[in-house]
Amino acid sequence: MLKMSDVITKKQQGRELDEEEIAFFVKGVTDGSIPDYQISALLMAIWFKGMTEEETVMLTEYMADSGETAELSSVKGKKVDKHSTGGVGDKVSLIVGPMVAAVNKGIYVPKMAGRGLGFTGGTLDKLEACKGVNTEISAEKFEEIVREIGFCIAGQSKRLAPADGVLTALRDVTCTDNSIPLIAASIMSKKLASGNECIVLDIKCGSGSFCKTMRDAEELARLMIRIGARENRKTVALITDMSAPLGCAVGNSVELIEAIRVLEGRGDQELTELCIAVAANMLYTANVADYETCEALAEETLYDGTALDKLAELVERLGGDKRYIYDTNLFDESNVTAMLVADRSGYITRIDAMQVGKAASVLGAGRDKLGEEIDHSAGIILNKHIGDRIEEGEALATLQAKNLDRAQAGMEYLFKAVTIGDTPPEKKNIILKQIGANY
Amino acid sequence: MLKMSDVITKKQQGRELDEEEIAFFVKGVTDGSIPDYQISALLMAIWFKGMTEEETVMLTEYMADSGETAELSSVKGKKVDKHSTGGVGDKVSLIVGPMVAAVNKGIYVPKMAGRGLGFTGGTLDKLEACKGVNTEISAEKFEEIVREIGFCIAGQSKRLAPADGVLTALRDVTCTDNSIPLIAASIMSKKLASGNECIVLDIKCGSGSFCKTMRDAEELARLMIRIGARENRKTVALITDMSAPLGCAVGNSVELIEAIRVLEGRGDQELTELCIAVAANMLYTANVADYETCEALAEETLYDGTALDKLAELVERLGGDKRYIYDTNLFDESNVTAMLVADRSGYITRIDAMQVGKAASVLGAGRDKLGEEIDHSAGIILNKHIGDRIEEGEALATLQAKNLDRAQAGMEYLFKAVTIGDTPPEKKNIILKQIGANY
Repeated sequence: MLKMSDVITKKQQGRELDEEEIAFFVKGVTDGSIPDYQISALLMAIWFKGMTEEETVMLTEYMADSGETAELSSVKGKKVDKHSTGGVGDKVSLIVGPMVAAVNKGIYVPKMAGRGLGFTGGTLDKLEACKGVNTEISAEKFEEIVREIGFCIAGQSKRLAPADGVLTALRDVTCTDNSIPLIAASIMSKKLASGNECIVLDIKCGSGSFCKTMRDAEELARLMIRIGARENRKTVALITDMSAPLGCAVGNSVELIEAIRVLEGRGDQELTELCIAVAANMLYTANVADYETCEALAEETLYDGTALDKLAELVERLGGDKRYIYDTNLFDESNVTAMLVADRSGYITRIDAMQVGKAASVLGAGRDKLGEEIDHSAGIILNKHIGDRIEEGEALATLQAKNLDRAQAGMEYLFKAVTIGDTPPEKKNIILKQIGANY
Repeated sequence: MLKMSDVITKKQQGRELDEEEIAFFVKGVTDGSIPDYQISALLMAIWFKGMTEEETVMLTEYMADSGETAELSSVKGKKVDKHSTGGVGDKVSLIVGPMVAAVNKGIYVPKMAGRGLGFTGGTLDKLEACKGVNTEISAEKFEEIVREIGFCIAGQSKRLAPADGVLTALRDVTCTDNSIPLIAASIMSKKLASGNECIVLDIKCGSGSFCKTMRDAEELARLMIRIGARENRKTVALITDMSAPLGCAVGNSVELIEAIRVLEGRGDQELTELCIAVAANMLYTANVADYETCEALAEETLYDGTALDKLAELVERLGGDKRYIYDTNLFDESNVTAMLVADRSGYITRIDAMQVGKAASVLGAGRDKLGEEIDHSAGIILNKHIGDRIEEGEALATLQAKNLDRAQAGMEYLFKAVTIGDTPPEKKNIILKQIGANY
């Protein structure tokens, strides 16, 4: 009979766990027979000693099989998912789902998203910033929406990969959330359980994400692509810059509004570029056409209004008021709006994603504990990007909060997030690398 | 406001925790505000990254102060304690307490012991193998016995160093029990809280103990001696061999009986030698006389019957039947007795302490979970020591168990524990090193 203490000891010594041990661990995590303190001891040992690809693949498979799997059998067509490792200002899921559905080539995007902890809410919180939207729907309803409008964004069923739910919650509070094999197993187990044939990964790289360096990002990307390949899921990865926030808005309603701007064909240029690349990769991996055609198809949806209509359809299906999508003036305004102005003239050399995230969090846009209320209207709108010229006294950013105290606290973080220098820095491309396909 | 996640991250990075962080951690462990899974994450990070002496001293002090301290103010005289890091067949506490009390030079031995998990019971379980003995007594009763008969062995109050209670229980199940700074802090915090002026440490070294190498044993010894010095407790350490079990008996009643043999002056030679050294060090650190005199005083108590009388007195005070001490035939016999015989002639080259411990455990002498029943009569008596000549078919050891299944399981472990070779190995001294005093 296996004992958890033997599994922990083996990993402390840096040895490779075998299939029996990994199966035992995942089973014990799922049925609650292994106590939290032993799980977190093993997670920390893995954090220090890592896992081989073999171990990671086995962990992923057993986690994927730890609960139900979503077959979406009534959806006749290729199912494609995208997943971001998470960054500040990341509203890409809100944009690419509608885009791919609008391309209307029989490709479906059943996107299960998280509420998440941290700087801002998750994709679900951002979507729920629109009045009336409820993303906690049944599996049947989810399947129906995917089938009928081509995509859906809703809460992940707790019955899918339940072992991952337990591990993710523990990793979050034991500082083991930045272990590359554990990230890979967590993401890929959910993707396997949710039954997608193709997976596009958006791996964030930079100060505002888990992967601080390109080396880590590439390692994670290649590991997940290999796991995908071994499970017959076509997987590609984009490594994208997360040293500065993505786009201009950080918060919940401000991010939904920014997503709407992109879907209107008048969004932030970098963000638009990234969304087109992600959507094009989703279409390309699903064999819709060659890559350039996929790009063109995706881009078109932003200019003919079809992608925006798709988002409005989803909002309506989720019980929301779709007029918000066509008139963003309807969104709740916050009580306090404050302006951060430049204290000198020069060029923006740094907008630290992590610091901006903390600023958004203290403004009220995030939550510290699961289940906490979130202030949908709190957030930040940056008026400048890295490299932009700014004059002393010019508005750098706008902050929104419920009260003055929060605005003040957010202002302090935001002030520290930005550096103005004498010369513009070298321009970085938002997409740093694409891995996993022949374009 | 400190957050536990920041403390964990700092240790993951191998950085030194400061006083505020250590105080926060110990307070949170004591009052339950830090959940088990975060405590075990930090323990595992410490297991990998270690602690500086400064950190260990602070951890020890805050743990010692986490509850009540036992002053034993009515006991007028120097209080001396001994502590073993634990090994297979270690019944030294049962012997040296009576010896020092029998020397009768105004030195007191208030020994708080554990029940413990593992191969065999703890000192308390061994003592309770004598009919009627109950070691769960009040602090007042404990103090009274110490004052009146010169020593006492009883359960440690949960109000002393409660943080250590939590950490020790978690270390045990998270495989972090063999971290040198954590062992040092655990032992020394209890010693500080129990108010002893002098401390004699018996640091086990070898396959059957935490410290597998002399390097680890010396590191632990020197660390604890320095902690003791900083807290004005005279601390000395004996590093003693634990590659083979100590003495001949491994179990509960068999170990108590072996302790009685030593106290009768006819015990195992090596075990007797070690007990005299420990008792002599206890007297010497308490300034009774020069070391040779202390040795002579301690040894004498084994031959004039005074130490045996002291053990009988303790048994009586704890509600036990002291006739058992003078007539060991009264002890319960086990249902099954089995003999392990040599399968070849030669010299005993190895009796692996760890394997013998496992054998005793499956015989029923230990417990896997706190609170489990223990079989006092189960155990092993070794007829041979390392280096002894043995002939094919000669009895190597006797096993005692409740039933045949257990005897069979124990036999399998024990068989693997012993190696017989062609030439006798080099003789090892039981005391490998003494550190911390000028003899």
